[in-house]
Amino acid sequence: MSKVKVGVVGFGTIGERIADGLAAQEDMELVGVCDVAVSLPVKALIVSGKGYPLYCGTPDKVKDLEAGGATVAGTLDDLLKQVDMVCDATAPGVGAKLKEQYEAHGVKATFQGGEKIGTGDLQFHSLANYDKAYGKDYLHILSCNTTGMARCINSIDRAIGVERVNAMIIRRAADVAETHKGPVDAAIVQKVPSHQCEDIMAVSPHIKALSVVVTLPITHGHVQTLQVHCKQDTSKEQILEIFGQNPRLQIFRIEDGFLSNSHIFDYCRDLGLPRADMYECPVWDEMIHVEGREVWFTQMIPQESIVIPENVDGVRAAMKMQDDYADAIAETNKYLKMGGKV
Amino acid sequence: MSKVKVGVVGFGTIGERIADGLAAQEDMELVGVCDVAVSLPVKALIVSGKGYPLYCGTPDKVKDLEAGGATVAGTLDDLLKQVDMVCDATAPGVGAKLKEQYEAHGVKATFQGGEKIGTGDLQFHSLANYDKAYGKDYLHILSCNTTGMARCINSIDRAIGVERVNAMIIRRAADVAETHKGPVDAAIVQKVPSHQCEDIMAVSPHIKALSVVVTLPITHGHVQTLQVHCKQDTSKEQILEIFGQNPRLQIFRIEDGFLSNSHIFDYCRDLGLPRADMYECPVWDEMIHVEGREVWFTQMIPQESIVIPENVDGVRAAMKMQDDYADAIAETNKYLKMGGKV
Amino acid sequence: MSKVKVGVVGFGTIGERIADGLAAQEDMELVGVCDVAVSLPVKALIVSGKGYPLYCGTPDKVKDLEAGGATVAGTLDDLLKQVDMVCDATAPGVGAKLKEQYEAHGVKATFQGGEKIGTGDLQFHSLANYDKAYGKDYLHILSCNTTGMARCINSIDRAIGVERVNAMIIRRAADVAETHKGPVDAAIVQKVPSHQCEDIMAVSPHIKALSVVVTLPITHGHVQTLQVHCKQDTSKEQILEIFGQNPRLQIFRIEDGFLSNSHIFDYCRDLGLPRADMYECPVWDEMIHVEGREVWFTQMIPQESIVIPENVDGVRAAMKMQDDYADAIAETNKYLKMGGKV
Amino acid sequence: MSKVKVGVVGFGTIGERIADGLAAQEDMELVGVCDVAVSLPVKALIVSGKGYPLYCGTPDKVKDLEAGGATVAGTLDDLLKQVDMVCDATAPGVGAKLKEQYEAHGVKATFQGGEKIGTGDLQFHSLANYDKAYGKDYLHILSCNTTGMARCINSIDRAIGVERVNAMIIRRAADVAETHKGPVDAAIVQKVPSHQCEDIMAVSPHIKALSVVVTLPITHGHVQTLQVHCKQDTSKEQILEIFGQNPRLQIFRIEDGFLSNSHIFDYCRDLGLPRADMYECPVWDEMIHVEGREVWFTQMIPQESIVIPENVDGVRAAMKMQDDYADAIAETNKYLKMGGKV
Repeated sequence: MSKVKVGVVGFGTIGERIADGLAAQEDMELVGVCDVAVSLPVKALIVSGKGYPLYCGTPDKVKDLEAGGATVAGTLDDLLKQVDMVCDATAPGVGAKLKEQYEAHGVKATFQGGEKIGTGDLQFHSLANYDKAYGKDYLHILSCNTTGMARCINSIDRAIGVERVNAMIIRRAADVAETHKGPVDAAIVQKVPSHQCEDIMAVSPHIKALSVVVTLPITHGHVQTLQVHCKQDTSKEQILEIFGQNPRLQIFRIEDGFLSNSHIFDYCRDLGLPRADMYECPVWDEMIHVEGREVWFTQMIPQESIVIPENVDGVRAAMKMQDDYADAIAETNKYLKMGGKV
Repeated sequence: MSKVKVGVVGFGTIGERIADGLAAQEDMELVGVCDVAVSLPVKALIVSGKGYPLYCGTPDKVKDLEAGGATVAGTLDDLLKQVDMVCDATAPGVGAKLKEQYEAHGVKATFQGGEKIGTGDLQFHSLANYDKAYGKDYLHILSCNTTGMARCINSIDRAIGVERVNAMIIRRAADVAETHKGPVDAAIVQKVPSHQCEDIMAVSPHIKALSVVVTLPITHGHVQTLQVHCKQDTSKEQILEIFGQNPRLQIFRIEDGFLSNSHIFDYCRDLGLPRADMYECPVWDEMIHVEGREVWFTQMIPQESIVIPENVDGVRAAMKMQDDYADAIAETNKYLKMGGKV
Repeated sequence: MSKVKVGVVGFGTIGERIADGLAAQEDMELVGVCDVAVSLPVKALIVSGKGYPLYCGTPDKVKDLEAGGATVAGTLDDLLKQVDMVCDATAPGVGAKLKEQYEAHGVKATFQGGEKIGTGDLQFHSLANYDKAYGKDYLHILSCNTTGMARCINSIDRAIGVERVNAMIIRRAADVAETHKGPVDAAIVQKVPSHQCEDIMAVSPHIKALSVVVTLPITHGHVQTLQVHCKQDTSKEQILEIFGQNPRLQIFRIEDGFLSNSHIFDYCRDLGLPRADMYECPVWDEMIHVEGREVWFTQMIPQESIVIPENVDGVRAAMKMQDDYADAIAETNKYLKMGGKV
Repeated sequence: MSKVKVGVVGFGTIGERIADGLAAQEDMELVGVCDVAVSLPVKALIVSGKGYPLYCGTPDKVKDLEAGGATVAGTLDDLLKQVDMVCDATAPGVGAKLKEQYEAHGVKATFQGGEKIGTGDLQFHSLANYDKAYGKDYLHILSCNTTGMARCINSIDRAIGVERVNAMIIRRAADVAETHKGPVDAAIVQKVPSHQCEDIMAVSPHIKALSVVVTLPITHGHVQTLQVHCKQDTSKEQILEIFGQNPRLQIFRIEDGFLSNSHIFDYCRDLGLPRADMYECPVWDEMIHVEGREVWFTQMIPQESIVIPENVDGVRAAMKMQDDYADAIAETNKYLKMGGKV
């Protein structure tokens, strides 16, 4: 079987990670990546010798890329001529504009969570609505926080049924190099409900959700506390079993020394993971609490890397690579070597 | 009527604020405050010329205090001979030891939230169990977070009944000058449930509670999101009305520019409040959300000053100054000029 | 003698503090303050009942101010008709535009450090070039960091002569409520030299200066380490004596517990200072180091309040209130109750 | 030639990195590493399958290590029987105690900067005093900040001569997972001079040095501004050339987007460097400033990894592997693939 040909448009924090994730899929071929300037991720691509062909978003920027030391393989149009599908990881608003260009080339696309609702044919999470996305052209991947929510909620939902979710989200203020973003010493509040619960209800219409978001001065991951109201009584043991069966979730114990999100990040450095990234969501064992049908748990969302598996799944769904969600997810997981971090 | 004679033992972040709170009560007389070293709060007491007589915890430390520029009015024993009651704000564990000394002098006391459970005759919150504390000798004041929870929970409980509370607490890592405490860039987790829900159930045994705590690198107040399950359906309007009737809660609007806990702290600076302290808990209007019997809201806990009113209430209860909780609270509020910040 | 009539244009972090500083001067009359929206400082002005008449920058904004609860005394033009001079504390670039309006009314002005160079007739620091500013119309006050540098450099210069200064500035990233400004966890660098040394050389042309600035995630003051090359050998004792004679500098000892800028901020809260502001620059005793003609010392710059005295001095210079710099400074100091914090 | 047999005692943040550094040296054999508990670095060693034999510091802890999933190769004594030399990276004070055990086995050692002065035969930096360390038994490696200083100072010294150094050090408060360390929002000061200048003068007695340290809430590297007084006039071009010849220094440009220490850390993640570690010190191009014989520059100190090359050099010196410092350094550099990051 011939490989599905893919590209990545926008080579920033998310785009560079999607590129690595796609490159690892043995049934896909990463034809190239595309950007318009020698940002630090592009510079690192050049220096690291990773070798992804670099395309330039617009012809007038080719000179800039070359001045920055890049070898330019062509323009975005050149890339679009060669691929079946792209993962668009451009800045919010840009993807919506580029969609026309993708359409002109008959190229499918995933868009990221920051893109405006309506850009894709539907909002997508592989565990929630893979079947609805199957064969579609434009998939809107959930944002990082919502992706993490969907993973565990839908794991429980598929096992014992979920009626309701309340999420309290501690949002990391900035990625490591986003030094222009604050706060320095504050908890920034926002109107309730936040968008995350809307997005959950978009991919899982039978689940009612509410989310509250407060932004805090940390960089190594969001931290969510979720309260899930199940359709039946459950137990911590059962929840651990359900989570244990999803390799995109990983149980960490405070007792082992995982005292914070930053401990987990630092542990990933020691594990030798590229960029110290995890594709999994860490869930703290000692923070799982069950009373009858109510389940509480707290998980970390590695905001830079968490949506990579779901972008890959999106390619599988749109390109009809696997009929069944479970097969698609298993395939993605296999190539990303998910699970087994602790 | 003669004034109730009170003292403060331990003149740190909490003790210095209790002293100011007691000094403002026209039906109490602050006989003196007590510490063992010229810490910065004691230095500020000396330099500011505020004039509270300073007693020394142990005779051997008198020399140290004097060397630091203090005029020493006597020892703790001297203070205890003159007072009816003290508010103990010493470091955790110290109050439990000093209790014997208080008993020897027949002096009643409040202890702070950090003191070990069992030091007081009971855990106390004026809105929850004033009647049980009435005439008792040793009252254990709730911690700052739990005090904030009790204020709003019991306000709702007295109005329409509360069955259950779930609290997600963003704990500030350190006070402004606690520079030895981290984290720098992390969200520190802990076992669920945390102690706060136990404490709520101790003062309001008919309410079931659960609390989750995560510690973040901020200094200007904890931020709690509470989910309250009421005994009957309610509405945002009714909740606003209930909160509006408790001068220890204050509604702030994000729309007015109160975007974070630090905005509120800075606003208190501009208001000219001593130390930029608020005795009230700010509740954000746009974060109140009601669905049937479920109420969500988010409040800030000014951790340094919030327990002052309840300590004063504790004196009123133990000393039988007012028979009724509402009268006691109203009296405390009046002298502390509670309410009217926005 | 009739009082000099002054106003403040721009009632933000700096403007509200200048207003308080001017209001405290018994030989000046604060006619009013001016802004265009009910920001938190304006809201605090309204709620606090401080009573400064509030003028509206442009007629079309009057409605907004009134909707926010303000009583509007008139427009900026109305204010300018009544005053001799204003302190302009508007956002960078706005003052340069308003200058024309000030000129039309024959009103003198100070501009703040963020305003573009050239807006004033000269850059001004009272200890450096009061005589040159005497009677001038438009004075450009130095920025907060440079003001702090000028105070100590010129104190030494007037006593024993200074040839050269090297400054290493740890810049606080944001004020307390500037939650949109980062970084969260980074030291942001910039080109050397930074603007501060240029500004020092502008007010003291005979001193050569170099400055390096790194921005860090703190809010309670900049921290500068200065190396001053004097014209003659000196000693720590002499430097302490020189600094001791300038009430705008205050010596703090690490040994006393002043371990950080935040300890000093918190101490000011305990002292009961409005907004916990200091007008003085704290210099750490144990960080003064002298070798021959070289002096090193480290001082904190309370960025919100430090330029208030120099703005008041600027009014004295422009309005020819005192002939001599020392008299002008002494008068300002007296009304601001400078010195005596430790 | 047979390989020199080495071990690492203390497998924490530094020890695990030294182990990797030694393992990369083709003329050394890493016999094993040693610790006493399954800390996160040890857990990562187990999970990652890196395969360094793990020895247990004391026989009574073997059970703990095994309970934590480790395969224990023996005790520290067993390790010491097999090695020529160890790099001791235990907590401060522990190495001084273990030295007796090392001596009993005739095993040489390096000790880290945090160990008390006097534990080694001398303080060591390969560029400063390799010849004095040649053949010695116990070498005290400089601390991370001082190592960074020594690299650039001695590079300049060997080229054009250095007389004097003044260092202003912004110390990172904590490593990523040191969440117990503060401050949250403060600049912590300390007595001048700090220890770093003493250490520089210990390895380079002909250079006079002064250092000032302030601790800030950042985690991704210290940032030092150094002023070097050379023996002759120089230029930015010459300094760039001198630094360019030392592969342990790397020039980064702000203009390229390296706006902060965290940008460089994040770039190292993108480069795919293990743990995002750099062995080099980044020096910012736009922060190099030269006036006659005075040179200013600002460099970042990656505190976790920077001393690894010098520990390896220490083995080379003590074990007489290379006669000349330059050959030793070149050999270490080759195996660590130093240079070429930008």
